[in-house]
Amino acid sequence: MTNTIGKIFSITSFGSSHGKALGAVVDGCPANLKLSEKDIQIELNKRRPGTSALTTSREEEDKIEILSGIFEGKTDGTPITGIVYNTNQKSKDYSNIKNTARPGHGDYCWLEKYGIYDYNGGGRGSGRTTISHVIGGAIAKKLLKTKGIKITSHVVQIGDIKARSIDYANLEENINKNNVKCGDLESAKLMEELILSKKQEGDSVGGIVETIAIGVPVGLGEPVFGKLDGDLAQILMSINAVKGVEIGLGFDSAKSTASELNDEFYYDENGEIKTKTNNSGGILGGMSNGMPIISRITVKPTPSISKIQNTVDLDKKENTKLEISGRHDPCICPRVTTVAESATAIILADHMIRGGFIHPSNLNKDI
Amino acid sequence: MTNTIGKIFSITSFGSSHGKALGAVVDGCPANLKLSEKDIQIELNKRRPGTSALTTSREEEDKIEILSGIFEGKTDGTPITGIVYNTNQKSKDYSNIKNTARPGHGDYCWLEKYGIYDYNGGGRGSGRTTISHVIGGAIAKKLLKTKGIKITSHVVQIGDIKARSIDYANLEENINKNNVKCGDLESAKLMEELILSKKQEGDSVGGIVETIAIGVPVGLGEPVFGKLDGDLAQILMSINAVKGVEIGLGFDSAKSTASELNDEFYYDENGEIKTKTNNSGGILGGMSNGMPIISRITVKPTPSISKIQNTVDLDKKENTKLEISGRHDPCICPRVTTVAESATAIILADHMIRGGFIHPSNLNKDI
Amino acid sequence: MTNTIGKIFSITSFGSSHGKALGAVVDGCPANLKLSEKDIQIELNKRRPGTSALTTSREEEDKIEILSGIFEGKTDGTPITGIVYNTNQKSKDYSNIKNTARPGHGDYCWLEKYGIYDYNGGGRGSGRTTISHVIGGAIAKKLLKTKGIKITSHVVQIGDIKARSIDYANLEENINKNNVKCGDLESAKLMEELILSKKQEGDSVGGIVETIAIGVPVGLGEPVFGKLDGDLAQILMSINAVKGVEIGLGFDSAKSTASELNDEFYYDENGEIKTKTNNSGGILGGMSNGMPIISRITVKPTPSISKIQNTVDLDKKENTKLEISGRHDPCICPRVTTVAESATAIILADHMIRGGFIHPSNLNKDI
Amino acid sequence: MTNTIGKIFSITSFGSSHGKALGAVVDGCPANLKLSEKDIQIELNKRRPGTSALTTSREEEDKIEILSGIFEGKTDGTPITGIVYNTNQKSKDYSNIKNTARPGHGDYCWLEKYGIYDYNGGGRGSGRTTISHVIGGAIAKKLLKTKGIKITSHVVQIGDIKARSIDYANLEENINKNNVKCGDLESAKLMEELILSKKQEGDSVGGIVETIAIGVPVGLGEPVFGKLDGDLAQILMSINAVKGVEIGLGFDSAKSTASELNDEFYYDENGEIKTKTNNSGGILGGMSNGMPIISRITVKPTPSISKIQNTVDLDKKENTKLEISGRHDPCICPRVTTVAESATAIILADHMIRGGFIHPSNLNKDI
Repeated sequence: MTNTIGKIFSITSFGSSHGKALGAVVDGCPANLKLSEKDIQIELNKRRPGTSALTTSREEEDKIEILSGIFEGKTDGTPITGIVYNTNQKSKDYSNIKNTARPGHGDYCWLEKYGIYDYNGGGRGSGRTTISHVIGGAIAKKLLKTKGIKITSHVVQIGDIKARSIDYANLEENINKNNVKCGDLESAKLMEELILSKKQEGDSVGGIVETIAIGVPVGLGEPVFGKLDGDLAQILMSINAVKGVEIGLGFDSAKSTASELNDEFYYDENGEIKTKTNNSGGILGGMSNGMPIISRITVKPTPSISKIQNTVDLDKKENTKLEISGRHDPCICPRVTTVAESATAIILADHMIRGGFIHPSNLNKDI
Repeated sequence: MTNTIGKIFSITSFGSSHGKALGAVVDGCPANLKLSEKDIQIELNKRRPGTSALTTSREEEDKIEILSGIFEGKTDGTPITGIVYNTNQKSKDYSNIKNTARPGHGDYCWLEKYGIYDYNGGGRGSGRTTISHVIGGAIAKKLLKTKGIKITSHVVQIGDIKARSIDYANLEENINKNNVKCGDLESAKLMEELILSKKQEGDSVGGIVETIAIGVPVGLGEPVFGKLDGDLAQILMSINAVKGVEIGLGFDSAKSTASELNDEFYYDENGEIKTKTNNSGGILGGMSNGMPIISRITVKPTPSISKIQNTVDLDKKENTKLEISGRHDPCICPRVTTVAESATAIILADHMIRGGFIHPSNLNKDI
Repeated sequence: MTNTIGKIFSITSFGSSHGKALGAVVDGCPANLKLSEKDIQIELNKRRPGTSALTTSREEEDKIEILSGIFEGKTDGTPITGIVYNTNQKSKDYSNIKNTARPGHGDYCWLEKYGIYDYNGGGRGSGRTTISHVIGGAIAKKLLKTKGIKITSHVVQIGDIKARSIDYANLEENINKNNVKCGDLESAKLMEELILSKKQEGDSVGGIVETIAIGVPVGLGEPVFGKLDGDLAQILMSINAVKGVEIGLGFDSAKSTASELNDEFYYDENGEIKTKTNNSGGILGGMSNGMPIISRITVKPTPSISKIQNTVDLDKKENTKLEISGRHDPCICPRVTTVAESATAIILADHMIRGGFIHPSNLNKDI
Repeated sequence: MTNTIGKIFSITSFGSSHGKALGAVVDGCPANLKLSEKDIQIELNKRRPGTSALTTSREEEDKIEILSGIFEGKTDGTPITGIVYNTNQKSKDYSNIKNTARPGHGDYCWLEKYGIYDYNGGGRGSGRTTISHVIGGAIAKKLLKTKGIKITSHVVQIGDIKARSIDYANLEENINKNNVKCGDLESAKLMEELILSKKQEGDSVGGIVETIAIGVPVGLGEPVFGKLDGDLAQILMSINAVKGVEIGLGFDSAKSTASELNDEFYYDENGEIKTKTNNSGGILGGMSNGMPIISRITVKPTPSISKIQNTVDLDKKENTKLEISGRHDPCICPRVTTVAESATAIILADHMIRGGFIHPSNLNKDI
């Protein structure tokens, strides 16, 4: 079941870039959650390309259709199937990459492993498969919202440009004011310029996406191999192009001492336990501690570039050169934000049910 | 099954720091692998504290006993149970931390989640639970060795001191020449000094551990949710004190362009496909590409320090101060190397079987 | 993941009787299996109602559409999604059963568990959900065929009429000669008469379906909790209306002594190990022993009958009477044969891959 | 993970008949359940042989030791490991069966599958492995008791002798009055005589064990592939020597019409929904309906008999004869009752947690 993730709230992903359709079966969603295609469409629209000069100009409508699991406007406890038909699938001739491994892509591995590979648009190796994440994530988000949990992803770095002063209080508002999805509007401009200059060069650039989940109760995560950070790391690392995941202070923890890093506990004015700092990113011992859960993923530059690259011809078994034509994202980070939110939501929804915070079968029942 | 990891080759972990015993049940190991307690003991000895001034001076023998799964010196296809009795379990009075949440530890989360918590030595939140990883990892390593796969972990950073010139050709030899387990002997000295100075201050320091797996065939990993990097990220992030995982160039990928980062393929003199660089860390599209698999984890400073810290008394529901006495690791990185090797080995063994590279039931049968 | 079955070769089922669609995602099928919609349609047609007077006269086209997982006529190692749109879904008014629990059906349990229930046509409680099994089973059968495994189900009892002399050599031929799908043509006539007489009375009748799998190698099944008979029992018992599962001599084993029941081993003329009898039904110690695998399931009479029944009105919270109109199967056994074959095929395919008899990713690779 | 069963409340079984030890890791048990070794020992004592002339006269102490998961007399949410050391393991020379497949046993399959087989006492194929079930079951029973669920297994048939008038009101009392564990004391005498006569002949006899669970709430079970009856069938069929499982009226359903079989619903005097009959055995559509859950398993005669049997010598590759000496159970049914109770309890405990009826982490929290 390697196309399924989640223990109770789970999504099974199917489909490929240029096949008939892409979609997800979402199992384990409790009944009585109000859900419509619109809820999912809103999220798919955020992931969709062609919304700015920063993304590929391919036009993909990505229209969701729910095939099962909804009765009279609500989930009914049965598997929810969301599907997106590929309407734009015959747009291009990909035969030049049929036997020519694109550097930075999994083409060679696919062919070697399966002995057959749908190379059109990258087949199932394409980032289009994250439509499945977004379908699952849209449902998870709506479920989490009923318990006051909110998840936001934003770009904090593009190339060597870092977001310097992020106004977390107005994060979502600021993100939506720029195409980079960065919370620091000044840096956003520099990031945008960098992306466009790389696009001009036929190149692409990477970045870092941060995700914040607020309102998460204490006690999500099950040590030792069901730790919340372990599960988050798995799903986040599985997003196309992601090469690193960190929680809280993450890699900078290496440079610290415990006296600097340890988040001291205190009772706040409401008698609730908080930590003064949040270097742990809301997770201690694999469990949520009630503080915001903060993760960051590094996203490599989109490997499809128009610059000529050295590679191999797997058919002729000889070295060759490859020029990839077509319209590609010069930086995938802005679109990855929606996927990171979705992936995080899926894991949190699963753990909310597993932890006894959401009733497993019927939202109308208290827990 | 949140104390079990792996789909076919799996380990189930049990036990706590100061309970009767710790151990693991290793399921899915094919029959006919020669295996003795000595194979596991060698690995446990590497993880064991008290071997240098850099680790806690607690003496723990950590003697392995195999209770099942071996017949006439070989695995027989049934679950292998390895157990380590806690002989040193009554050494200390931990009652001062019974209701006082130690900053940087999961104590508060454990109590909140389960309503009961074995605070002695940190209970199941203790790093001693990684004995389970090492038991499973020792078996996995022996299994992988039959297919020519070798895994080595080493310390590449302590505090802000980085290993600068690592002699990868003599990596293992160099690692064993110093207590830090660093491949750069000169940096190792500086790292050792830093650790000892932090120990002197009653503080601790973090670091970064790199793991290299060589000899891994092309095609391990199953997209979309069984990706090799996703599975590695999960198990590595689940190791106590780890706050970040990266593959290949990892977080530095963010700063790169695709033209710099993409590893170009070529046919080598033996007609085998290689990549000129290995920025991807041996994983493309979630599958191994035949190059060395390289991961790095960041390990936070051991949170147990003797410096006085602010925290809360959960019983009296008031703010308080905590001074943790006892012998703690001023830097856990050298000991984490063995755990990182083990964790990596478990995932690779699982994927070798899942991928059809190792026969699932009988090593003597070809695949 | 309670709508998914199988560890490696797995199917995820979705959809309901009168929703938009029903289908299955089949994960873990190795690449390079030739597969077309026709392969599945043939099996769906066998399950389809309306093919004889013995089944409901509802017309359901049950046309399969493959949405993913096939590339150039072959599986490509990615999830195969098969879907059947419900074209006949608005045919009837079911409002009389909205709050009236139909005896023998799960209606009351659905409502109590989920607090919402798509009562139209029985929703997801309907036997139409076995379309998912048949989709998965058709693929599994084709996969098993590449290794010489063949599965046949047939009716051996209807009411108190048992098939007396089954000509196993011409089983399939005989099954297809009668609408009951019985291998004994004389008994088949009596069975048909019984079914039609019950139909006339507005009642229904049960029966027993036997499944035989031949060509299964020695060693499928993994003790203790992955036993082949355990896995078969689970999937067979999960088929709608099934109330019992037995392997080999099954319940009659209770009456036997070991000296009568034990199947004695011998070397046949080809030097192969066989058993003289097959009371064990091809499974010993949870593993296949190379003999035909034989299971029998008991299928209760279709609970939807036109006779007036006592039951409860869940809305008014009072006792009431119910008359179910509409066209129902007077005996579901003939149609269950296809589902039993499918269910058996799914489990065998999973175990063939798990046991190292079929390569997990690429059929063209030897194992 | 084929030695693990259960999704949330799960047990991992390890050990073999004549190895060092047998045991189970019980994961997913909520914290704050009072539990001691005595709770498990009581159940193990019921399964233990040597308690009457009806069982093998082998003496096995089967003393439980809990290695983890209990803190101050209560479960603490971490894995519970129970272990039984084999003290009687060197009692006998089994070399005559080393290469001689015992008819009715899995020996041949084990050897063929794994290429190595601990033949001593049947190794892991031995019924002694059900010690794992009993350890898990004892904990599950105690957990279920907190919610008023009680499980009782009893022998209803030995050979062709059926229990005729079972006094269900005093079932447990009667069971404990006879060595057969039959609820009908008169039949019990005849059963005992039959067993002893078969013992005299060096033969053995089979039987049927019924299990009743009362107090189960409505709504356990998750359609389609997490059905309660499917999960029960799997674990019950996985018990050594079981060849059939049925729920409610079971195989006799085949002979019935729906008008006879359908259990009519009604409101009882307390306003609760009941069914007049319980032909469904408490499960409809894969979900519990609040009525007693009734299953029956058929247990084949113990295949180890002292009568001479034809079989094969796997080493010499020729036909041979086998005489099995030693002390074997002439009928295993009385001892299977405890295992059937345990297996049922494990599945019900898992579904109680999965269904939101027991809090997943902390028994002291309401759900």
